[in-house]
Amino acid sequence: MLKELREEVFRANIELNDRGVVIYTWGNVSAIDREKGLVVIKPSGVPYETMTADDMVVVDLDNNVVWGSKKPSSDTKTHTTLYKAFPQIGGVVHTHSRHAVAWAQARREIPCLGTTQADYCAGPVPCTKPLTEEQVNRDYETTTGEAIVERFEGLDPAAVPMVLVAGHGPFAWGKDADDAVHNAVVLEEVAHMATITATITNPIPPLEQYVLDYHYERKHGKNAWYGQK
Amino acid sequence: MLKELREEVFRANIELNDRGVVIYTWGNVSAIDREKGLVVIKPSGVPYETMTADDMVVVDLDNNVVWGSKKPSSDTKTHTTLYKAFPQIGGVVHTHSRHAVAWAQARREIPCLGTTQADYCAGPVPCTKPLTEEQVNRDYETTTGEAIVERFEGLDPAAVPMVLVAGHGPFAWGKDADDAVHNAVVLEEVAHMATITATITNPIPPLEQYVLDYHYERKHGKNAWYGQK
Amino acid sequence: MLKELREEVFRANIELNDRGVVIYTWGNVSAIDREKGLVVIKPSGVPYETMTADDMVVVDLDNNVVWGSKKPSSDTKTHTTLYKAFPQIGGVVHTHSRHAVAWAQARREIPCLGTTQADYCAGPVPCTKPLTEEQVNRDYETTTGEAIVERFEGLDPAAVPMVLVAGHGPFAWGKDADDAVHNAVVLEEVAHMATITATITNPIPPLEQYVLDYHYERKHGKNAWYGQK
Amino acid sequence: MLKELREEVFRANIELNDRGVVIYTWGNVSAIDREKGLVVIKPSGVPYETMTADDMVVVDLDNNVVWGSKKPSSDTKTHTTLYKAFPQIGGVVHTHSRHAVAWAQARREIPCLGTTQADYCAGPVPCTKPLTEEQVNRDYETTTGEAIVERFEGLDPAAVPMVLVAGHGPFAWGKDADDAVHNAVVLEEVAHMATITATITNPIPPLEQYVLDYHYERKHGKNAWYGQK
Repeated sequence: MLKELREEVFRANIELNDRGVVIYTWGNVSAIDREKGLVVIKPSGVPYETMTADDMVVVDLDNNVVWGSKKPSSDTKTHTTLYKAFPQIGGVVHTHSRHAVAWAQARREIPCLGTTQADYCAGPVPCTKPLTEEQVNRDYETTTGEAIVERFEGLDPAAVPMVLVAGHGPFAWGKDADDAVHNAVVLEEVAHMATITATITNPIPPLEQYVLDYHYERKHGKNAWYGQK
Repeated sequence: MLKELREEVFRANIELNDRGVVIYTWGNVSAIDREKGLVVIKPSGVPYETMTADDMVVVDLDNNVVWGSKKPSSDTKTHTTLYKAFPQIGGVVHTHSRHAVAWAQARREIPCLGTTQADYCAGPVPCTKPLTEEQVNRDYETTTGEAIVERFEGLDPAAVPMVLVAGHGPFAWGKDADDAVHNAVVLEEVAHMATITATITNPIPPLEQYVLDYHYERKHGKNAWYGQK
Repeated sequence: MLKELREEVFRANIELNDRGVVIYTWGNVSAIDREKGLVVIKPSGVPYETMTADDMVVVDLDNNVVWGSKKPSSDTKTHTTLYKAFPQIGGVVHTHSRHAVAWAQARREIPCLGTTQADYCAGPVPCTKPLTEEQVNRDYETTTGEAIVERFEGLDPAAVPMVLVAGHGPFAWGKDADDAVHNAVVLEEVAHMATITATITNPIPPLEQYVLDYHYERKHGKNAWYGQK
Repeated sequence: MLKELREEVFRANIELNDRGVVIYTWGNVSAIDREKGLVVIKPSGVPYETMTADDMVVVDLDNNVVWGSKKPSSDTKTHTTLYKAFPQIGGVVHTHSRHAVAWAQARREIPCLGTTQADYCAGPVPCTKPLTEEQVNRDYETTTGEAIVERFEGLDPAAVPMVLVAGHGPFAWGKDADDAVHNAVVLEEVAHMATITATITNPIPPLEQYVLDYHYERKHGKNAWYGQK
């Protein structure tokens, strides 16, 4: 079942580890088959070193396991909540990458300070509101997804493919699993750069909106001309 | 004698080095056989590159060498003091990992700022009081252990498996040598994240207690459901 | 066409990646054949892992592709603007290396704080003025080059082979592609060192001009005697 | 001539590179044969990748080349000045390691903040006075050595085997080339730790003198008992 997508999600999980944004089992990647309404996701707590494509788990959008012998990631409900709310996206990633987590712990959005961020994200990286005690105790993983969705009111998840969950860490997404991993790695890098900028200047000068727009459009706009396309 | 445990402790010492939390001989791992009351520990000052399982040293809880041709780690008395005071633990690790040492040098506990720490430690990482001159000159390695034990009055060492010794560095422990190494690596990572958070915001916002409790219980509580268990 | 120069530029792009100053496709190296007035440059958006020397693109100084099947780097016009304004230089590099970007985001020049920088750069690393909205929308990549050239009024690009573009990132150059890569790596390193110095002291004490002069002259002056020359 | 010592110095230079405290040719190691009064030192500007033991250069204490086809390190006079002033030492290292350079650029000594430093250095890592213009223009490399020697009035170079040259970078030494490299790596590590501590607390609390003494004596005192000796 969904053998090709399971291979893709497996390789994307390995890539996440290879890129240095994950230690131990601190991350997970999923992807969705929109036609079938099924999500392939990393199993919970299985080390990257011994993980295989057959360890991937297939769940439906109500979080029922429909294929696989392992338990799915403990963050599965957050992933499915995002897939249901954001029909544009095909892959989701969660990590505890160091600098992104640090900004999430600071409960600060990452302002757009330069073209590195503007090439991927049409503005600041948003940060959710902290969950209430009621939200945590009702259905934590679902309400985490809901807090992200609430924060994206008025934002386009295709243009801002990353978020910080206050006190927790980053989620990123994209058109597929690979693209989501790419965005998670970029998020860690821009969080690192913003940390250094904050070290050497205060207040931090935001990038001019017209430069932000130019860079984002150059890569993602209607007439994008970056790369070999 | 204790061949299996010696292999375990040897591999855990190598893992400590491979995870990048140790340079030269700046760390040591031990494990205890509770039935026999014997501790296996790394030898003093032997490079990781040439160390073998046969270099491990077996001592009793009074610090007498009962097996092995090498001298045990200079920190042996600290390890045995912890094993005597904390019957729940099976392995102990000491490192000079960079960020954990920096917080120990600052003589600051690491507040629990996010779920990364909450997944492993049910609150802040405590920091001991500085040793007095009398303590240092009486029996330094033993009094170091005693300062840790004193700091844990009212704390559960199973729920808080890590500590900073003021002006010195971190100790971590766990149910066995591997688990202790895992906690030592996590401690370095959360110390690194807390450093970055402190760089970008002041004061540092602590994690809500109900999130801390939820995350800790999800992994370690009676009804823990993280991983494949 | 220009087979040898294409090999050189290809290898210099790989070196840029190997030195850790680039992730994904976030950098580009070019070199010029001054006699022919032709520039060899990296293609746009091709991953380093699969890139070959035959993917390099040859353009003239008016940015017309004269050889190659790929599209040239999106930053090509910045490179050619620099070649036209600075006849002394033979290679140009652009990266998004972390610390250099952070200073560019802070819109601060990097003062010369020590001999490490003085060995390569006869003074501070300059930072351009931000581009105006008109400049961005007219011809962004060309005006980026022009902003660099404007900033170098009164400066010798052979003696100051590196610059920060405000809100964007670093460019470096040299007598050929290899030399430009070397200077890009040095720029990242001195930006990193300056960041740390700014962390531990304020204000930052600049290097005495006579030490700066001595070190720069020792390596680059008429009577330079560093190395085996 | 001095084949064994040349091998030692060559391997120590490679080790310096392998330990990550040097990029390009930014470091040099030497060792002395005290009976013959001859010093073996790295050649100037030769890349580590292609360097061999036969590239090492032998000089006398007046800086005359007595063996070898290469030019000696541009810092040779600093090394020989140290050997003449400090008869206890057998090896000298100079690097531009990142954090040590940053403290040198800040012109701050590194206070002894913890036992990591106390295990190697009986107090703060001293920082020289800046050189005067006269010193720089008279005989820069010799006066650099003299500034170090002046700073060590009242200090024991065997107990404090490392120094920062203001605005420049670190020198370290030891009983032989290997020991000097070890101390240079330790210096970078303690500089890194002190930087982090300075980030999270202000003022920085120095280590109690009695802990410093205990740790230093444990490894280096008359009754040292660390390691397998």
